[in-house]
Amino acid sequence: MRDFLPADKTRRERVLAVIRERYRSHGFDEIETPVLEEYGRLHAGIGGDNEKLAFNILKRGLDADAVRAAADAPSLDVAALADLGLRYDLTVPLARFYASHRAELPTVFRSIQIAPVWRAERPQKGRYRQFMQCDIDIIGDASARAEAELIVASLDTLDALGLEGGTIRINDRRLLDAMLDVFGFAVDERPGVLITIDKLDKIGPTGVAAELRERGATTAAVDAFERFLAGVAGREDRPFGEHQIRAALPEGVPDEIIAHLVGLGETVAAARGAGGEIPLVFDPFLVRGMGYYTGTIFELAHPSVTYSLGGGGRYDGMIGRFLGQDVPAVGFSIGFERIVDLLAASVDAEGASVVLVHDRDVPVAELLAHKTFFVASGARVRLEQRTKNLKGLLERAANDGYTAFATLPAGATPGELEVKPLG
Amino acid sequence: MRDFLPADKTRRERVLAVIRERYRSHGFDEIETPVLEEYGRLHAGIGGDNEKLAFNILKRGLDADAVRAAADAPSLDVAALADLGLRYDLTVPLARFYASHRAELPTVFRSIQIAPVWRAERPQKGRYRQFMQCDIDIIGDASARAEAELIVASLDTLDALGLEGGTIRINDRRLLDAMLDVFGFAVDERPGVLITIDKLDKIGPTGVAAELRERGATTAAVDAFERFLAGVAGREDRPFGEHQIRAALPEGVPDEIIAHLVGLGETVAAARGAGGEIPLVFDPFLVRGMGYYTGTIFELAHPSVTYSLGGGGRYDGMIGRFLGQDVPAVGFSIGFERIVDLLAASVDAEGASVVLVHDRDVPVAELLAHKTFFVASGARVRLEQRTKNLKGLLERAANDGYTAFATLPAGATPGELEVKPLG
Repeated sequence: MRDFLPADKTRRERVLAVIRERYRSHGFDEIETPVLEEYGRLHAGIGGDNEKLAFNILKRGLDADAVRAAADAPSLDVAALADLGLRYDLTVPLARFYASHRAELPTVFRSIQIAPVWRAERPQKGRYRQFMQCDIDIIGDASARAEAELIVASLDTLDALGLEGGTIRINDRRLLDAMLDVFGFAVDERPGVLITIDKLDKIGPTGVAAELRERGATTAAVDAFERFLAGVAGREDRPFGEHQIRAALPEGVPDEIIAHLVGLGETVAAARGAGGEIPLVFDPFLVRGMGYYTGTIFELAHPSVTYSLGGGGRYDGMIGRFLGQDVPAVGFSIGFERIVDLLAASVDAEGASVVLVHDRDVPVAELLAHKTFFVASGARVRLEQRTKNLKGLLERAANDGYTAFATLPAGATPGELEVKPLG
Repeated sequence: MRDFLPADKTRRERVLAVIRERYRSHGFDEIETPVLEEYGRLHAGIGGDNEKLAFNILKRGLDADAVRAAADAPSLDVAALADLGLRYDLTVPLARFYASHRAELPTVFRSIQIAPVWRAERPQKGRYRQFMQCDIDIIGDASARAEAELIVASLDTLDALGLEGGTIRINDRRLLDAMLDVFGFAVDERPGVLITIDKLDKIGPTGVAAELRERGATTAAVDAFERFLAGVAGREDRPFGEHQIRAALPEGVPDEIIAHLVGLGETVAAARGAGGEIPLVFDPFLVRGMGYYTGTIFELAHPSVTYSLGGGGRYDGMIGRFLGQDVPAVGFSIGFERIVDLLAASVDAEGASVVLVHDRDVPVAELLAHKTFFVASGARVRLEQRTKNLKGLLERAANDGYTAFATLPAGATPGELEVKPLG
């Protein structure tokens, strides 16, 4: 977990403000849920591997007997010790929120959640145990409209952050399933096969085939899949369209899912303008980890980086688990922490801002009157008592984003100081 | 703990944006610390009664033996079960932050912290187990300048929120101590006496005297204090100044603390303009609960409410506990939750915002192209498929802050829709 000093915090808040403003423009509504959810809800099987990483809250008012009983249970009874936990994602809380407040929300509900989540990961470079997530979700719309709105809003937000040229890597869980069916993988081995395919970028076609064999996957299916992978290697992934999608898939996958993706591409292109170019890239091996995805899945890519800047997909089954009825849903999570790191070098200095350097003997009432004058003019103002190292003092202020300074002798009139540029 | 629906969340974010912007103008710098702090630090005696209300985090990877050992300790060993906890205030984290990062911060550090805190209180009306705190603190300045900057920034922020006319109720812990000394309370009974005096507004002078007798406080001192309370009842508390402060105190309190308050009043008046009126009210019985205050203490009052809208004071001893050396500090916490409730009725509708109502048969690509046109013009846009109850649909959108709508036939050109006002 990290402390954020002023320069970092300012940068983070500016990025959050852009994301919030863009998502609101696109008709999404921000909500907030408590950081603590019930222990049972966090461990109901929806959160996948993240459930194991939850921070759990010790029950208040436990006595020694209750603790001893938890220890004496056949396996340590954590649920007897903990009643709440810190959320590890924003999807479980959204499902709970929607089930609680459905009657107060529009039929098609477009939510924004901008909030921290916690995972008790082992400390490693670039991973934090507390980090921000920025999710948009559309609940109650099973059509391509919802997917297109998420994609267009995400690309527009990336543009607004100065990261033009983003693209969406896209696939569909149903295509993956159809592809595995064509190769002959049995239904019950497909979830494991997908976990291996998800490593294709890292371990390559040979590594994937080897791992599948190690897993004991159907041999004929692995052979067919390996031949297919060798055949598609190096094919062009652009331009996005029916021809390219078909060329990247084996024979025999259903037309309607391909048509859905093609239509989505045309819709996004029409909405984005930009000469009609389709900012989508079909990736038949894009899996995305979460087990709950049921249809379209996508990741946000940018030419400046090799990793994704966010991702999401359709998860029609999950909201229904809290409601007892099926509700379509699709979500997108922008990679806030990665984007902040990427933008770190490019944050502007403050607008109007001035450091007022004063001698020790200037009366406090005068200091404050000068400060008020500049604050009222719209500037950000810092008072600094003069030190021997005036240069160091001004350099620090410039580092903190201040752009100008004035020295303040006793008896000066507010508004008549000479303001000089800093640095 | 509460969920916030879009209207509430929007209102909260707007108020936070005003507070953040005003505090930044006044030269404060925002920082952020993790919500989890070490268990030992949260239970080091700095947090007062709040320590008992901390939510503690169960250690990861505990085994049954470790849990049994905690249960078998002479008294249940919570520290063996929990290694972290949710912060119950922003002052303990600030002290830890300052001790960790002092070398990277300006000599006089003006911090902003806008963040949630958690207390495991029993549910009761108007109290929440998760709530926002908005603190500003000045570390490293022992002078009245720091106190004046906090007060002026807080009043300016209240103005910017549309709550003009705020005043500061002010006192000094050293005056309280001197007053108790004059009446003859022994040093070791004074902390308990202050707890009783803090109830003066609720139980009145007779109640205070009765409770002090019940506590077993020095009888002669209680008698003298009771006579004094009877004598000052009903005295004017304005205008703020030396005469009024002296009249509200017994003979024999030190001149220099009175002079400090008088000077602070003049400084604040000079900084606030407004014809030189001093927006301070001296309250010789203002105590404020936290034991760590060492000097000036204050509360923010507004004529529209009887409760305070925030408060703070000087706490010179505390930061030093983490550093091993004395560092002066003064802080102010604005009552965000109370202010949001107070402003609830007066939040404006959205600026440019439009609901696009479309029939089912309009192609998705057309819908998105219309949406893009309005988003690009700076509006907030929501797509709605027409329902039988169009009136209800538009009413809901108006409630959500939308100000205009357009109906969207298939084949229309973006930019040529007729936009009508809503409601």
